[in-house]
Amino acid sequence: MTDLQPVRGTRDFYPEELRLRNWLFGIWRETALRFGFEEYDTCVLESEALYIRKAGDEITEQLYSFADKGGRRLALRPELTPSLARMIYQRARQLRFPLKWFAIPQCFRYERMTRGRKREHFQWNMDIVGQAGQIAEIELLSALVTGLEAMGLTSAHVRIHLSDRRLLDAVLDHLDVTADHLRVMIVIDKRDKVTPETLDALLVEQGLAPAQIARLNAIMRMATLAEIKAELGAVPAAVDLENLLGSLARMGYGDWVHFDITVVRGLSYYTGTVFEVRDRGAKLRAIAGGARYLSQDLDAGVQYPAVGFGFGDVVILELLADLKLLPALERQIDFAVIPFSPAEHAKALEIGQALRRAGLRVDGDFSGSNLKRALQRASEIGAARAVLLMPEELARGELVVRDMAARSERRATIAAFLAEPR
Amino acid sequence: MTDLQPVRGTRDFYPEELRLRNWLFGIWRETALRFGFEEYDTCVLESEALYIRKAGDEITEQLYSFADKGGRRLALRPELTPSLARMIYQRARQLRFPLKWFAIPQCFRYERMTRGRKREHFQWNMDIVGQAGQIAEIELLSALVTGLEAMGLTSAHVRIHLSDRRLLDAVLDHLDVTADHLRVMIVIDKRDKVTPETLDALLVEQGLAPAQIARLNAIMRMATLAEIKAELGAVPAAVDLENLLGSLARMGYGDWVHFDITVVRGLSYYTGTVFEVRDRGAKLRAIAGGARYLSQDLDAGVQYPAVGFGFGDVVILELLADLKLLPALERQIDFAVIPFSPAEHAKALEIGQALRRAGLRVDGDFSGSNLKRALQRASEIGAARAVLLMPEELARGELVVRDMAARSERRATIAAFLAEPR
Repeated sequence: MTDLQPVRGTRDFYPEELRLRNWLFGIWRETALRFGFEEYDTCVLESEALYIRKAGDEITEQLYSFADKGGRRLALRPELTPSLARMIYQRARQLRFPLKWFAIPQCFRYERMTRGRKREHFQWNMDIVGQAGQIAEIELLSALVTGLEAMGLTSAHVRIHLSDRRLLDAVLDHLDVTADHLRVMIVIDKRDKVTPETLDALLVEQGLAPAQIARLNAIMRMATLAEIKAELGAVPAAVDLENLLGSLARMGYGDWVHFDITVVRGLSYYTGTVFEVRDRGAKLRAIAGGARYLSQDLDAGVQYPAVGFGFGDVVILELLADLKLLPALERQIDFAVIPFSPAEHAKALEIGQALRRAGLRVDGDFSGSNLKRALQRASEIGAARAVLLMPEELARGELVVRDMAARSERRATIAAFLAEPR
Repeated sequence: MTDLQPVRGTRDFYPEELRLRNWLFGIWRETALRFGFEEYDTCVLESEALYIRKAGDEITEQLYSFADKGGRRLALRPELTPSLARMIYQRARQLRFPLKWFAIPQCFRYERMTRGRKREHFQWNMDIVGQAGQIAEIELLSALVTGLEAMGLTSAHVRIHLSDRRLLDAVLDHLDVTADHLRVMIVIDKRDKVTPETLDALLVEQGLAPAQIARLNAIMRMATLAEIKAELGAVPAAVDLENLLGSLARMGYGDWVHFDITVVRGLSYYTGTVFEVRDRGAKLRAIAGGARYLSQDLDAGVQYPAVGFGFGDVVILELLADLKLLPALERQIDFAVIPFSPAEHAKALEIGQALRRAGLRVDGDFSGSNLKRALQRASEIGAARAVLLMPEELARGELVVRDMAARSERRATIAAFLAEPR
């Protein structure tokens, strides 16, 4: 074995890192359950066809795809939504809508790596499917804020940048852009990733005239919905967005939510509300992103209104580390059972078994190291107490229990100790 | 989207299936923690080189492997042990041995599908690394039995078939087999998968003479260690195995553990104890399998004695279903909040928010369906109580709380209800 590193762009999780991951997943899971969502999952391996789209989504270019031994074209999922759609249409007749489903899948994209960007990440996915009105957005964004709060974050750290694809569509109409609006939007989404000059050049490629580009850039710099409305008039998308912002403010989320016309998101199938969570310093990539979309089975001609978000584990853990908000999570063991010598091994196994049957977490130290080292190890593995099995005490049916934090010891008969292990 | 099915050999987990998976994973995790194991994880995507071996392991032939966009040869992991070894040697100097680590990875093998055999499964992995004596086997097998018991199984349902590769090695020595013993063992491991005639032909291919094969088959039919010892003499492997069986019997696991010379396991790097969990009816594939092995970094020349097992989710769920031991796990919601009409939506959001902040699981019904249907849905989604927001009651600052099981209703002021939601 020559290469001990994980595959470039992927991560190993040593126990201390996995405790942190479990903490984060625990917040995601608990928040989802509190909002009445049900957990589901699909396989990381999917048909490549699910991700081949026409609008130039980055996702298609970044696929990990290959043929299996049977010649099937497969891919590691870059996102979960197409799998969710597949599951829904497979059982559309049996399922009760609206669905509120969540999952924590690992997703893969072959990307150039920078800070907060690996080639895999775990992603908290929350989707409400089959509910058209803004209530779905309000419930989903409430869950998002609740999850952020549970991590110790406030609106002083992060904000939800919110817009609506239909508003940008109205802007492009207003500017008489005749090119395919979706393709133009996918270009506008690159705004943060390329220079202003490159962006202008890409817009020219899409057929926009210099005057259109100048006016578009001016609108994209507008900070308030009022300014946009003054430019476009009270188009339906602006009115809807105003209502949504009002509802969220009444829920107490006014500080959390920030109107931002530049939010587009990169996927071609989004149809309305779009949002992303960003750190206030704008130092990191988007922490989470979501949108309204139509979940549709083209064969059956059925479509469901849906809204959902994805929230990755990589960027948030970097932000929480920067803010010193990561919890200190130590290994926890109730009892370290320490036999003095091999003569006490059988007794140690027996006592360990009795404690575990009582639901306690037990580690047995059969390393043969001396008492001092064994106690040091008990302390290192996070044992609350050590049970010492010494020849003399055992001969009298007794053992020694050491409280590791208090550094105090007591003697007890084995029977009394097992009747009430402490 | 034309194909709604998951990729052949892979599974979707709808919420009712995921609840069952979480139940099983919960038992695995809780058992591991009770035995003092720490959780870790690696990426499902690994370097193909980790799995290329010379001994003709089936695993190499069944790899999902491919080149990424950078030309790296990658594979979806078929098992976790090579990744574990990689992690250990990456940090060998910082880690404290013995390690007791567990994980629940998804593993992939491109296999012909039959009952209990898919192309992916989740596998409970438990490994003790850096502990040479039989205590490691005893602790590991105790954890295995504890996990099986937590699923409701007894030794009347399943048994651990136990042997030692060194014993089979001694048998081959005894028969003067000069061919590579490891390759012969890999052939013997196919015993349950091919006909006796095919097995004999494969042994001939390995260079065994008809007389050797006949004597080998006779030994493989021996049911007790005493018979084997009568044939071979008290070879060290037989003595060790006798000691291990004795220790396990003293722990109360005598009925669970069954000596079985035919157990070999398919991996080339196993060095000692080998075992598998089998259903008593022998109707299913092995439920779990494990072995002693040497975890080694060939570059560094360091090696650690290790023992571990893998326990898949597919076969056990089939067995538990056959035995009607699967729990009935329903969706659980504390409160379904039901606004009478859109006029009560804002109040419903507010009450839902207050209940969720109190840690309760809440679903809001904004479907606009009539009260009867809304209550039916509340019952279907497993709500313990429904909170009805009716115009007249709300005007008086009151709401109606319905206990879904008792079919009883009570009125309460909003303030009183939120002070003590029940």
